Amino acid sequence: MKKVLIANRGEIAVRIIRACKELGIKTVAVYSTADADALHVKLADEAYCIGPHLSKDSYLSFPAVLGVAQKTGAEGIHPGYGFLAENAAFAEACENAGIKFIGPSSDAIKIMGIKDVARDTMEAANVPLVPGTGIVPDIETGKEWAANIGYPVIIKATAGGGGKGIRVARTEEDLVKGIEITQKEAAAAFGNPGVYLEKFIEYFRHCEIQVLADGHGNVVHLGERDCTVQRRMQKLVEEAPSPALSEERRAEMGEAAVKAAKACNYEGAGTIEFIYDYQADKFYFMEMNTRIQVEHPVTEMITGVDLVQQQLKIASGEKLPFAQEDIKINGWAIECRINAENAYKNFMPSAGTVATYVAPGGYGVRIDSAVYPGYTIPPYYDSMVAKLIVHADTREEAIAKMDRALSEFDIAGPGINTTIPFHQALMNNDVFKSAKFNTKFLEENDILNTKKPENV
Amino acid sequence: MKKVLIANRGEIAVRIIRACKELGIKTVAVYSTADADALHVKLADEAYCIGPHLSKDSYLSFPAVLGVAQKTGAEGIHPGYGFLAENAAFAEACENAGIKFIGPSSDAIKIMGIKDVARDTMEAANVPLVPGTGIVPDIETGKEWAANIGYPVIIKATAGGGGKGIRVARTEEDLVKGIEITQKEAAAAFGNPGVYLEKFIEYFRHCEIQVLADGHGNVVHLGERDCTVQRRMQKLVEEAPSPALSEERRAEMGEAAVKAAKACNYEGAGTIEFIYDYQADKFYFMEMNTRIQVEHPVTEMITGVDLVQQQLKIASGEKLPFAQEDIKINGWAIECRINAENAYKNFMPSAGTVATYVAPGGYGVRIDSAVYPGYTIPPYYDSMVAKLIVHADTREEAIAKMDRALSEFDIAGPGINTTIPFHQALMNNDVFKSAKFNTKFLEENDILNTKKPENV
Repeated sequence: MKKVLIANRGEIAVRIIRACKELGIKTVAVYSTADADALHVKLADEAYCIGPHLSKDSYLSFPAVLGVAQKTGAEGIHPGYGFLAENAAFAEACENAGIKFIGPSSDAIKIMGIKDVARDTMEAANVPLVPGTGIVPDIETGKEWAANIGYPVIIKATAGGGGKGIRVARTEEDLVKGIEITQKEAAAAFGNPGVYLEKFIEYFRHCEIQVLADGHGNVVHLGERDCTVQRRMQKLVEEAPSPALSEERRAEMGEAAVKAAKACNYEGAGTIEFIYDYQADKFYFMEMNTRIQVEHPVTEMITGVDLVQQQLKIASGEKLPFAQEDIKINGWAIECRINAENAYKNFMPSAGTVATYVAPGGYGVRIDSAVYPGYTIPPYYDSMVAKLIVHADTREEAIAKMDRALSEFDIAGPGINTTIPFHQALMNNDVFKSAKFNTKFLEENDILNTKKPENV
Repeated sequence: MKKVLIANRGEIAVRIIRACKELGIKTVAVYSTADADALHVKLADEAYCIGPHLSKDSYLSFPAVLGVAQKTGAEGIHPGYGFLAENAAFAEACENAGIKFIGPSSDAIKIMGIKDVARDTMEAANVPLVPGTGIVPDIETGKEWAANIGYPVIIKATAGGGGKGIRVARTEEDLVKGIEITQKEAAAAFGNPGVYLEKFIEYFRHCEIQVLADGHGNVVHLGERDCTVQRRMQKLVEEAPSPALSEERRAEMGEAAVKAAKACNYEGAGTIEFIYDYQADKFYFMEMNTRIQVEHPVTEMITGVDLVQQQLKIASGEKLPFAQEDIKINGWAIECRINAENAYKNFMPSAGTVATYVAPGGYGVRIDSAVYPGYTIPPYYDSMVAKLIVHADTREEAIAKMDRALSEFDIAGPGINTTIPFHQALMNNDVFKSAKFNTKFLEENDILNTKKPENV
């Protein structure tokens, strides 16, 4: 490929432009009217405004994006993450237009995008799933099945979705009541009273495996990332490797991820997310993200593999330049997502014009950002200002380096707050340092001690 | 050590503060009145003005620097490079004041600081020296010796120095005339007519070996850096490893460097510089720099060893945490020194206020700088604005990455020019890409095509 259109904005658009430049590929940026001054627009070889700030009329518009690709002769479209990245219809539209969608086939996106299809596909491929049952025929069988799974269990309406028709049962008594209520509610809400049971993993870590698959049947995994530090399901800090996995479990998880990718004929970079039940030392398939992820840099830092360059090479038909045994894990990497949010005020978005922007530097420090001094962060898109990534020999050294780098990071301007104080407090938090926590960590720990706000 | 004073300014002061912070060591900055707004002043835990902009009254003043160290209870002084870094008297003053000079002993600095003592010490340690003779007793013996060494040779007055009393002879005819004239001139100028001969290595590469030595007798080398891209003896671009050395010669050079360090009971980080005669595939001792060097980052990138942290640990009495066989070279690193100079106008200094400062980022890009948006570069010190360092798998990929990073670097302001256009032209220069050049490269190649200035 000689020219690629980047159907995205922000730091990931800049990330992709960088990879293209390093490979000698020309770049075409697209942007909404709100992004006329964006860094990706400045850095690309060509840039075209494709609509107003509303994503549906710009970054999500098939004709707008495909139109620029055709006009400029772009041979491929890189969707980044978000927007069109996991849109099977868009991948199909690219396929039909004879433009390479830089990612998996629309079929693979569909398989992984529909939860029960993904689950069935994983089951057939022997990827571990959270233990569950079929439709509960009667209360007595339900009791038996629940006892087999072990409490707590979740009762789920088979026709439910989006968090509806779900109930946790911690005892047999809960179960009996729960099945009856859920069946009634489901019958009323979805016209289908069927419920099934699933083991409820209350305390878990979020671990995920990066895979790369070429168009020649080769699939390699690049180890795990640990994204357990979450706030309301949003990842805030990611690290690699995971401090919680044994070598054995790590190897099994990697193998499971390769099976998952092969099961959907995957091509490109993808991530298989797992629930890691650290108490039982077992892991279960959660979902597959059929795209590059925000947190991909931590994997790059510990493997030395440029994932976005690999995406571009795979899309060009190249074979993976390494086999599984060539992938070596080296040291420890941590990423902090610096968002324009006020961490003292419930992470309220607080965008504005960046008057001061002094970024940290030095050995082992990487910054992926689309912000520059004088840039006005538009309020329409995500609030991420920068990804600050560090690499060191050990987790302890990586935390010290992150703390040092955060202390240098100076982002300020009228109306702007960032999550830097939160990350600084986190790097100095004993529970975080101990690495002994689960996804409820931030719920249960007042990291910033917001009862006594400081520096606001 | 719990507290360290940094007797320097600019990027190296920032570099040292970063290493201290990562090791939990408190930092004391000193600064001249011209540096009140400097980044190292902002980043240190404490900062003290020690005098006016004239270095001799501030950064070079023993009482000013030692006074702050004593007042603040700093246990060590890190001299960086330049200023007091290779000042044996200052190292001795620190020793006498009971403050650890973070570097070698004053004795080691003295040995390596006096050229003939260094040469004798290296000869005794079996470190290769440029072939030379004793005092030439008569013309016939001179002819014989010159023939043994091989033409061209240099005729040097034994009492000369600083480039005086030196003459190149390319033929026997040159030699006869040259010895006579040099003897006469030397007798007149120095009162000593003695001359000796040395092989003249006209075309060479500058290669240098990084060593680390602890206070427990352990010396390890960390491979070579190639600093052949020079302008008037000033290094502009450094890379590691060297594209010119065979594995065999690389190993020999490393062993020679370890011998050199052992011969002067070296402690800390040091560099042994070599003349590499690539035509004869031989190398010779040039000099030892008894300090950290500007170009140390390229070694860090390919070895994974933080050299400044190691300096601090060695000064604290720790043993080296690795042996020679643990040092592995990984990939390729290049550093460009971005100076506030107009490369189109004979590299004329052009400092001023940095109105725009947008630094490159992303995977494999490191920036060591003390500049920030709005900072005024004082005209009194060196002109370096930033060190831009990249790391990739191969030299070709590192060049592509540097070219990409340079294309993002936007430094501008009233009166400011930088050497970025020079480095961009260099990364696209076929001779540079071929790696087939010597220290005369920039003399012989008009990289920027200054006969047709562009973008000025």
